[in-house]
Amino acid sequence: MRLSRAFLPTLKEVPAEAAIASHKLMLRAGMIRQTSAGIYAWLPLGLRVLQKVSQIVREEQDAAGAQEILMPTIQSADLWRQSGRYDDYGKEMLRITDRHERDMLYGPTNEEMVTDIFKSYAKSYRDLPRNLYHIQWKFRDEIRPRFGVMRGREFLMKDAYSFDIDAEAARLSYKKMFVAYLRTFARMGLKAIPMRADTGPIGGDLSHEFIILAETGESQVFLHKDLLDFDVLAQKPDYEGSLDPVVDFWTSRYAATDEMHDEAAWNAIGAENQVSARGIEVGHIFYFGDKYSKTMGLSVAGPDGNPVTPQMGSYGIGVSRLLGAIIEANHDEAGIKWPDAVAPFRCAILNLKPGDLGCDTLCEKLYASLPGDAVLDDRNERAGVKFNDADLAGYPWQAIIGPRGAAAEKIELKRRATGEREEVSVEEALRRINTAPQGH
Amino acid sequence: MRLSRAFLPTLKEVPAEAAIASHKLMLRAGMIRQTSAGIYAWLPLGLRVLQKVSQIVREEQDAAGAQEILMPTIQSADLWRQSGRYDDYGKEMLRITDRHERDMLYGPTNEEMVTDIFKSYAKSYRDLPRNLYHIQWKFRDEIRPRFGVMRGREFLMKDAYSFDIDAEAARLSYKKMFVAYLRTFARMGLKAIPMRADTGPIGGDLSHEFIILAETGESQVFLHKDLLDFDVLAQKPDYEGSLDPVVDFWTSRYAATDEMHDEAAWNAIGAENQVSARGIEVGHIFYFGDKYSKTMGLSVAGPDGNPVTPQMGSYGIGVSRLLGAIIEANHDEAGIKWPDAVAPFRCAILNLKPGDLGCDTLCEKLYASLPGDAVLDDRNERAGVKFNDADLAGYPWQAIIGPRGAAAEKIELKRRATGEREEVSVEEALRRINTAPQGH
Repeated sequence: MRLSRAFLPTLKEVPAEAAIASHKLMLRAGMIRQTSAGIYAWLPLGLRVLQKVSQIVREEQDAAGAQEILMPTIQSADLWRQSGRYDDYGKEMLRITDRHERDMLYGPTNEEMVTDIFKSYAKSYRDLPRNLYHIQWKFRDEIRPRFGVMRGREFLMKDAYSFDIDAEAARLSYKKMFVAYLRTFARMGLKAIPMRADTGPIGGDLSHEFIILAETGESQVFLHKDLLDFDVLAQKPDYEGSLDPVVDFWTSRYAATDEMHDEAAWNAIGAENQVSARGIEVGHIFYFGDKYSKTMGLSVAGPDGNPVTPQMGSYGIGVSRLLGAIIEANHDEAGIKWPDAVAPFRCAILNLKPGDLGCDTLCEKLYASLPGDAVLDDRNERAGVKFNDADLAGYPWQAIIGPRGAAAEKIELKRRATGEREEVSVEEALRRINTAPQGH
Repeated sequence: MRLSRAFLPTLKEVPAEAAIASHKLMLRAGMIRQTSAGIYAWLPLGLRVLQKVSQIVREEQDAAGAQEILMPTIQSADLWRQSGRYDDYGKEMLRITDRHERDMLYGPTNEEMVTDIFKSYAKSYRDLPRNLYHIQWKFRDEIRPRFGVMRGREFLMKDAYSFDIDAEAARLSYKKMFVAYLRTFARMGLKAIPMRADTGPIGGDLSHEFIILAETGESQVFLHKDLLDFDVLAQKPDYEGSLDPVVDFWTSRYAATDEMHDEAAWNAIGAENQVSARGIEVGHIFYFGDKYSKTMGLSVAGPDGNPVTPQMGSYGIGVSRLLGAIIEANHDEAGIKWPDAVAPFRCAILNLKPGDLGCDTLCEKLYASLPGDAVLDDRNERAGVKFNDADLAGYPWQAIIGPRGAAAEKIELKRRATGEREEVSVEEALRRINTAPQGH
C-alpha cells in the first residue's frame, strides 16, 4: 500500500468518547470510524487486521475438525419462540418486523438456527459427531455501547456448535475446542488463560472463559503462575488422539475470574504461586447438553434404532473484540505494537526523501520484495510525521531509508516492539522480516 | 474434505418452491438451506464457492486500485434523510427501531454512508482520486423473493464508490471498473457483456449492466457477435495507462437489454452480426456526478483553494447472485459443472471400495497431493451413489479409483464439463488437475 494513495485517515485529536487505549488508538490510526452508537465501519488498516484475525480463527477451527458454514444475520422470531428465548432475551435483541408483518430479529447468537439446520439432515448416530461454525456479524442492542469495538452493538463473532451422540463424546468435542482456542490466541501473540465460568443464560454445566491479561483489562483475575509459562505452540495437537494431558494441565491449576473466585482454594496454592492481574474475555465455550436439541426437537436414530437426543456445546470467539484486546495488551504511549501474525502490514518502508533517486530506488526495491505485506510511506511529509505515523499504526518493522543510507544501499531497520534499530543490507532486512514468528 | 465426516446434506427430492435450475441444484447439492423466505444459510460446499467468488472480486478490485473497507449492515436513518432517499426507497428497505427509539435500517446499498465517511477525511484535491469498496451483506425486503440466491432478501454484494476531482477523472475511474468487471467475470469462466443501461433511482448519466448469457436468463438481450469472441484475459490491463482501446471495443459495438433495445441501430449491424440471447445481470456500474456529494455536503479544496464538489460513481457486483448465475450458465441434467476457478473443490476422489487396501492407499495418496482442494468420497455407499453425487456437486475433475485400477496404480480421470474419461497414472492426473485454467 502506497500511503500517497491510501485511504488512511489518521486523527490528530482523540475523540472525547474514547475512554480506553485501544479505542483511542484505533480511531487515531484510522482503523475504524463510528457510524452510529456502537456501530463501526472498518477502514483499510483495521479491516486487514480483522481479516488476519479471522483467518487464524478459521485455520484453527478447521484443524480441530469444525466445518465452516455461514448463517444469515436476519432470523425468524419463530425459531426463538421454540427455544423459549424470544421473550427471555430482553431489549438487547434487535427486533424487526418485515413488510409482511412477520417478526424477525438480527441474530445475537445462533443456537436455535444451527440446531434447526442440523435437524433437517441428521437422521442417524452415523451423522454424528459434527461441529459447525461460522464467522458472522451479530447485533446486541447494548443500552450503553462503549470501549469501541470491545463492546459494540454490531460485532463479528465466530460461533461453533457441536453435536454428539452422548455426554462423553460431547466432552471430547469440548476439549477439541478448548485446545483449538489456546492455539488460536497464542498464534495472535496473546497469553489467553481458560477460566472456569458460570454458564449463564445459555445454560449447561461446563464452561470456560478465555481471558487475556492486560493492565487495562475489564476485570480482576487470579491464576497459578505455572499457567503463564506454558508454551501452547510448542507442539501440534493430535485431534484424533487424547487431548487430556493439555486440558488437564490447564484445568488442574487455579484460574478464576472475580465472579468465580474462591478464597480458600486460592490461599491453598501458596503466595509464591499466586498471580493476580487484570483480564479481558475473548472467548467462551459451553457444554449445555440437550438444552437446545430438546426444545428444538433434534433427535437421531441411535445404534439400536431408538431415538437419541444429541448433546450440544457452543464455542464463541469475539473476533472484532479481539482487535481491541490485542491492542490493550500491546501498546505504548506512541501507539500500537502489533504482534507479527496479525499486523495489518508487517513492514512500513519510510522514504525520508521522496524524489531523491537513491531513496526512491531502494524503497521500491524493498517494497517489491514484500508483495502485499508492506506500506510504503512515499508522502511528501516531514520525517517526524512518518516516524510518528508508523509508530502509531504499529507495524512490527520499520525500514527507514534516507539519502545517506540509500547511497550505501543500507536500511535502518527498527523493531517496533523493542525500539531496537540497526543498519542492515536489503537482504538482511528481508531475512529478518521474513523469519519473524508468524504464529504458525 | 472427507465425505464420511462432512456436513454435506444432499437432497433426493427437489423442494417445490425451487423454480429454476440453479435454485434446485444448490438445494439438491447441499450448498444452501433456506432459513426464512429469501434468506439462506450457506452450507460448507456453498460457502466455499462464495469465498472463491469473493476472492476473485477482491483481487480484481485491488488490481484496479480500489481499496477494501467494510461498512456495517445497520445504518442510521438520518443519513438517508440527508440524501432524500429515506422516503423514496419504499418497502424494500428493512426499517428498524432500536431500544432508544432511533430509526435505523439494514443497508440495501451504501452511497450515503461511504460519502459521509469520506467527507470526514477528504480535505483537499490531493486526497483524490480514491475508490473504496466493501463486500458485505445487504438486505432488500423483496415482496416476493424467489429463484434462490438469484433474488434473495439477504444477499452478499460488492459495492465500490469512486471520488474524483472532476468529470474527466471520474470517467477514468469508471473505465477502470469497467475493465476490472470484464476480468472478474472472465476469471470465473463467464462471458459477461457490458450493456448500456438506464441509471434508474441511483441517478446519473452513464451506466452499464454486465450481463452473462445463459439459456435460462431472466431477460432478452441483443448483441454484436464480435463481443462473444473477445478474449478478456489475453492481456493484463495497465491501469496507469489508457484503457480506451478496451472500453472502446466494447462500447462501439451493439449490445442492449430489452429495455434499452433500439431496433434501428440493431438492424444497421446486419443480420449476420446479430446475436439474440437470454441474459442474467451480475454487475452494474454508474457514474452519477455530484448527486450524493452535493446532498451529503462533501466538498474539498481545489488546487486554487476554492471548494470543489467531488464527482462520484458506484459499482456493484451481486456476489451471492453470481453463484446462481454461474450455475445457470454451467449445468446439465446430472448437476452443476463448475468452472475450475470457482469450484468448491477441484477434484472429487471416488473410492469405489473403501476398506480395500489398494483403493484406500491410492485414494489417500492422491488426497494428500491435493491439500484443501479435494473431496474424498470414503463413504460406504454404492458406486452409483458416488457417481451421481459427484456429478451433482459438479467438481471439475473426478478421480475414480476401484480395486482393478488401484492394483495397476491407475486412476480413471473424468472431466465433468465434457464427460471425457481416461485412465492415467497418479502423476498424470495431478498434472492435468493442476494445470487446468484457474482463471488468473
